[in-house]
Amino acid sequence: MITQLSSSSLLWQYPISLPLLRPTKFTTQINNKSKTVTSYDHKLCWQEELKVQDKHTDDESFQRIVDKRCVDNVRMLVVDSVQHAKTGHPGMALGMAEVGYVLFRHVMRYNPGNPKWFNRDRFLLSAGHACLLHYVCLHIAGFQSLQLGSRTPGHPENVVTDGVEVTTGPLGQGVANAVGLALAEAHLAARFNKPDVVLVDHRTYCIMGDGCAMEGISHEAASLAAHWKLNKLTLIYDDNHSTIDGHTNLAFSEDICARFKALGWNTVTVENIHDNMDSFKDALSYAFTEYQKPTLIRVKTIIGKLSEKEGTSKAHHGTFTEDDVRRMRQKVDWSEREPFHVIPMVYREMQIQTDHGERMEEEWYSKLNYYQSKYPEEAAEFKILLNGGLVHGWETSLPKWSASEPVDATRGYSEKCLNQLAKVLPGLIGGSADLASSNKAYLHDYKDFSQPNSPWGRNIRYGIREHAMAGISNGLALHGSGLIPFAATFLTFSDYMKNSIRLSALSHAGVIYIMTHDSIGLGEDGPTHQPVEQLAGLRAVPRLLVFRPADGNETAGAYKVAVANRDVPSLIALSRQKVAAHLEGTSASGVERGGYIVSDNSGKDLPEIILIGTGSELCLCEGSAKTLRKEGRRMRVVSLVSWQLFAQQPKEYKENVLPARVSKRVSVEAGSPMGWREYVGGQGVVIGVEEFGASGAYLDTFNKFGFTQENVTRIAKSLLRE
Amino acid sequence: MITQLSSSSLLWQYPISLPLLRPTKFTTQINNKSKTVTSYDHKLCWQEELKVQDKHTDDESFQRIVDKRCVDNVRMLVVDSVQHAKTGHPGMALGMAEVGYVLFRHVMRYNPGNPKWFNRDRFLLSAGHACLLHYVCLHIAGFQSLQLGSRTPGHPENVVTDGVEVTTGPLGQGVANAVGLALAEAHLAARFNKPDVVLVDHRTYCIMGDGCAMEGISHEAASLAAHWKLNKLTLIYDDNHSTIDGHTNLAFSEDICARFKALGWNTVTVENIHDNMDSFKDALSYAFTEYQKPTLIRVKTIIGKLSEKEGTSKAHHGTFTEDDVRRMRQKVDWSEREPFHVIPMVYREMQIQTDHGERMEEEWYSKLNYYQSKYPEEAAEFKILLNGGLVHGWETSLPKWSASEPVDATRGYSEKCLNQLAKVLPGLIGGSADLASSNKAYLHDYKDFSQPNSPWGRNIRYGIREHAMAGISNGLALHGSGLIPFAATFLTFSDYMKNSIRLSALSHAGVIYIMTHDSIGLGEDGPTHQPVEQLAGLRAVPRLLVFRPADGNETAGAYKVAVANRDVPSLIALSRQKVAAHLEGTSASGVERGGYIVSDNSGKDLPEIILIGTGSELCLCEGSAKTLRKEGRRMRVVSLVSWQLFAQQPKEYKENVLPARVSKRVSVEAGSPMGWREYVGGQGVVIGVEEFGASGAYLDTFNKFGFTQENVTRIAKSLLRE
Repeated sequence: MITQLSSSSLLWQYPISLPLLRPTKFTTQINNKSKTVTSYDHKLCWQEELKVQDKHTDDESFQRIVDKRCVDNVRMLVVDSVQHAKTGHPGMALGMAEVGYVLFRHVMRYNPGNPKWFNRDRFLLSAGHACLLHYVCLHIAGFQSLQLGSRTPGHPENVVTDGVEVTTGPLGQGVANAVGLALAEAHLAARFNKPDVVLVDHRTYCIMGDGCAMEGISHEAASLAAHWKLNKLTLIYDDNHSTIDGHTNLAFSEDICARFKALGWNTVTVENIHDNMDSFKDALSYAFTEYQKPTLIRVKTIIGKLSEKEGTSKAHHGTFTEDDVRRMRQKVDWSEREPFHVIPMVYREMQIQTDHGERMEEEWYSKLNYYQSKYPEEAAEFKILLNGGLVHGWETSLPKWSASEPVDATRGYSEKCLNQLAKVLPGLIGGSADLASSNKAYLHDYKDFSQPNSPWGRNIRYGIREHAMAGISNGLALHGSGLIPFAATFLTFSDYMKNSIRLSALSHAGVIYIMTHDSIGLGEDGPTHQPVEQLAGLRAVPRLLVFRPADGNETAGAYKVAVANRDVPSLIALSRQKVAAHLEGTSASGVERGGYIVSDNSGKDLPEIILIGTGSELCLCEGSAKTLRKEGRRMRVVSLVSWQLFAQQPKEYKENVLPARVSKRVSVEAGSPMGWREYVGGQGVVIGVEEFGASGAYLDTFNKFGFTQENVTRIAKSLLRE
Repeated sequence: MITQLSSSSLLWQYPISLPLLRPTKFTTQINNKSKTVTSYDHKLCWQEELKVQDKHTDDESFQRIVDKRCVDNVRMLVVDSVQHAKTGHPGMALGMAEVGYVLFRHVMRYNPGNPKWFNRDRFLLSAGHACLLHYVCLHIAGFQSLQLGSRTPGHPENVVTDGVEVTTGPLGQGVANAVGLALAEAHLAARFNKPDVVLVDHRTYCIMGDGCAMEGISHEAASLAAHWKLNKLTLIYDDNHSTIDGHTNLAFSEDICARFKALGWNTVTVENIHDNMDSFKDALSYAFTEYQKPTLIRVKTIIGKLSEKEGTSKAHHGTFTEDDVRRMRQKVDWSEREPFHVIPMVYREMQIQTDHGERMEEEWYSKLNYYQSKYPEEAAEFKILLNGGLVHGWETSLPKWSASEPVDATRGYSEKCLNQLAKVLPGLIGGSADLASSNKAYLHDYKDFSQPNSPWGRNIRYGIREHAMAGISNGLALHGSGLIPFAATFLTFSDYMKNSIRLSALSHAGVIYIMTHDSIGLGEDGPTHQPVEQLAGLRAVPRLLVFRPADGNETAGAYKVAVANRDVPSLIALSRQKVAAHLEGTSASGVERGGYIVSDNSGKDLPEIILIGTGSELCLCEGSAKTLRKEGRRMRVVSLVSWQLFAQQPKEYKENVLPARVSKRVSVEAGSPMGWREYVGGQGVVIGVEEFGASGAYLDTFNKFGFTQENVTRIAKSLLRE
């Protein structure tokens, strides 16, 4: 009745590859309708497998036996993987086997054939080190990238493995991501659902460990989830009393349910999931009845369940002794089976759920067709989002500035760009960490996202929670629904969300970070608020595009690149203070190359000296160049608005902008000198800030640190004299 | 009866200077004993000032009238300061005037004549933007640095202003700092107090705003405070319902008292402090009766109290209209007074408390004398701490390694250093964020800090709370009691605590950050855990010393510098994987110079090429050099273990290590190339990591990214051929 499963006993290399292949042929043989679980042949096969003779067992009781056996198999795959890889984190994967199995077998709506189906339920493993559990569930459910030659990194990465929604591992991040996914769902549901067609309607499940529960980011995100009434978010807390260093009572003595209740959550505790999977199903049912609050399900589990290390922190990571493995196998009647054995019926069992998911996806497309015919306008917008959020010609909406217009701070230009973009980009959504007015990151034509009043609002009020803001923005970007999230705060406070920004880059989340007050030029708030080293640190993050535009046209250029690159995060550093002028030579197209010539009077000759600036200091270069040109000097001014983009340019282009033969160079940026030597060369001068800033008015502060046209001119002259 | 107060009406420049001088002469005229408040002349003067005729008012009621008038004066100083400076954050300073006044006048034990008195109560303003309130209280209490030519930065900085314990402004940090101060007190009390002499016994008060309450770091720190039973910590929450962007209900709907209760706090709410200061005093009394829990006092206030903007977020920051100022002055009967007026009796009123503090300090020194005679051994240790924690010759305890000893990971060497240091440095205390075993940052001869079992323990279990760990470590360092805190996690997770690390540097907190798993060399955990850009970002932080030692002797050298520099934070990056060897040329004295020659066969000639390495990659340089020397090449190997220290060396020394004439240079570091151009010059080659890492075994990962001896040799050869 079932085709041969020869591959199921192949070795599973971890974390490198998974040469274990789920058979697909039997699918044609048991292509029964929904609720296959009760069908005669399926049950018969299981009875054969389980050697259960009594055919009169009622279906519900029988399903319990089946579920238990499937969980045994999940655990054995976890054990075999760790033993084979000689590394890994089995403890939580074993303890949470029931949770993973129940979600993937009985609860979640998904289709392994199309892991990106829009209306799928989302599953996140915030405690990413338990990735083995996720990988095993994805494998038995039939996800392609978990089959032969599987892609199983040490912590889950969405850009590597299908079925993984976000990249987790750094603790707590997944909780914030989950809030972002649930927020996306709530927002889009409000915008697009109609009384007769519900297009957007999925749940978000997130597993959180003790570590996630302790991290500040999960607290911030949880507070927002309740404030936003994200009732379709279910957080499953693995309460196993163990962390790496020992029992949680070393450092954790909270009443976690009371804490979540205080934030506005619905909470429920599952006392004994290992002997009673139904209790977890009941808890989920309880969560489904909740229409105002997110739900925390606290599941008491035994870490490393089965192993002799069970219940102790020793089970957290590392391999098992051979004796231990033997005993575990005995306990679940697995002694006769080869490593990596999968009971064929386990695959068939999972198939019931995935068949169901496949049908739901089909139904969803029918709904979408109906929606298109009945609500063509909304459908058109929805399709734009499904296709990634960009519309043809969107970039023409970006404002342009001419020299005659009044000058502003670059944060002011950013405000104009953002508000113009919002009109043409239906997915543009975001907010700030209680600095909307200072960051000028507010979409004036759109309301606040607020439940139940205006969930369609596209301004998000994050409160003073930078870390959660960035983690939630990653969730918004990775929801896969064309949302283009922006997140704003002061550049200094990028420090609060550094890891989430890194994860934007690692997980290809096209978040746009709007970081104002980008230098000591912010003035009176003083050194605690004045960024110095932040630009350097952020420029070093792989894949992150950092921009520091000098005026309106460069700001527009930064937005052009940021919006266009939907799988790359961008960070736009903007001034608090007014910049000196609209510079003649700046342009959006220049920004696209990262660095370019803003002005040059050298004609066919090479310039005698190159002044390189960014942001509010570019005008100091330009002013100084004008002065020296009057003295007959050949001066070039270069804007190095995005180091990363410039680095990507062809060698010839870079040589054209910064010719190797011109060794007299001065860089001017009110930030750490770190990295500038790359551009000014060994003989150039870096004008930067090597200490913390100072409390004072903007001009006084700039003066104190040498950011004046006079000082730039003085230094340029001294180089020219050499 | 009171000396002339001519200076009290001078202008107060803000944030630059405070030309307001508190008179000191009258102190000799009213040097009454404790409880001066009830003495005849003091009351008489107040009656004169207040024009209260009824001499029969009972003392308690009269004190209420006096307190109210003092608070009026505090508010008027806040208003005048903002108006004069044309900038600032008056809202919270006005709303919390009663809180500040009550603490400084009636509650806290301190002596402005010696702001650093060991046993003083500590006051922290986590909501640092309300610094005006703090500055005004410090001024009227007589702190020297708040008098003429005052030092009043835009946010409070302990290194600028006496009476400011820590540097705050970035929200939430102060809460963690306060937990650190309270932890220091509890720990030292357990170590040194005797039944007959209580040497260590102070309270810690911290004001927290809505922003602090929302930030994850405050949640993490609050959870630990309760776990550690820090009953002498009082957190005063300014519940004013306003943030910059508007009403807190935009983003905040928690039941904050329930939340803190769930964490294990004692909580109490003060409903109407503006009309009833006694209710706040009562809440404090309630906190004093608590012997197990820290206390949260939720004080409902009106932001911008008095102004027409009161109760709205408009009062958060910015100046007032002239009309508004006029009305405010009318409301408190202040119309006739000049700007910056201080009622002379306000100074005298504060003097009662500071006289009391002065006497307590005197008594404390008597106690200390008695303690010295009765407990000479403990007293000797206590004195070491009071003097900063270092003992003569402490550095000789650092281990040395010879070439014959088994090699280890640098985290292993670190463990040995730390444990040797613990024996000679009584103030060495610290822990990790649930990675003690991985970071190898555990003092094996000392217990865990745990209440009530072992509060004298010197290992701190932070749980998975990196941000709070760093903030608490800052508090430990700035307690001023010779504690030398260390804080450990994986280098990648320095991202979680970046702002606190920055504040260590800004506030001169000599925290030692132990960051293991310092490169892609950590292997299997994959890119989420592999640092790439972190070193670059941290090296850019002003004043922070970053070390990446290559072997045991360099690790010892890093500790030598880190411990010796008590007002500079250090960060030691350490490998997870074993390093290849004990290198012959490495030395602690070399580390002290930041960069130095490890080996060179050039004799009197210059080397043909310089290989520069750090950490686990230095041995690749050394190995490659050996190979090429066999081929007759003149090779130099340089360890650049601390960029910051190297930068501080004299020009001649730097030229000696990296002669300008040797342009063939290769740097080898498994991290971002950012910043390396400074050392390899325009013609050198930087071997670095420009993308995220990969999941795999250590050697596979190193191989993938070119960190092999063969690759270094290949690149060196190609340079030599040029």
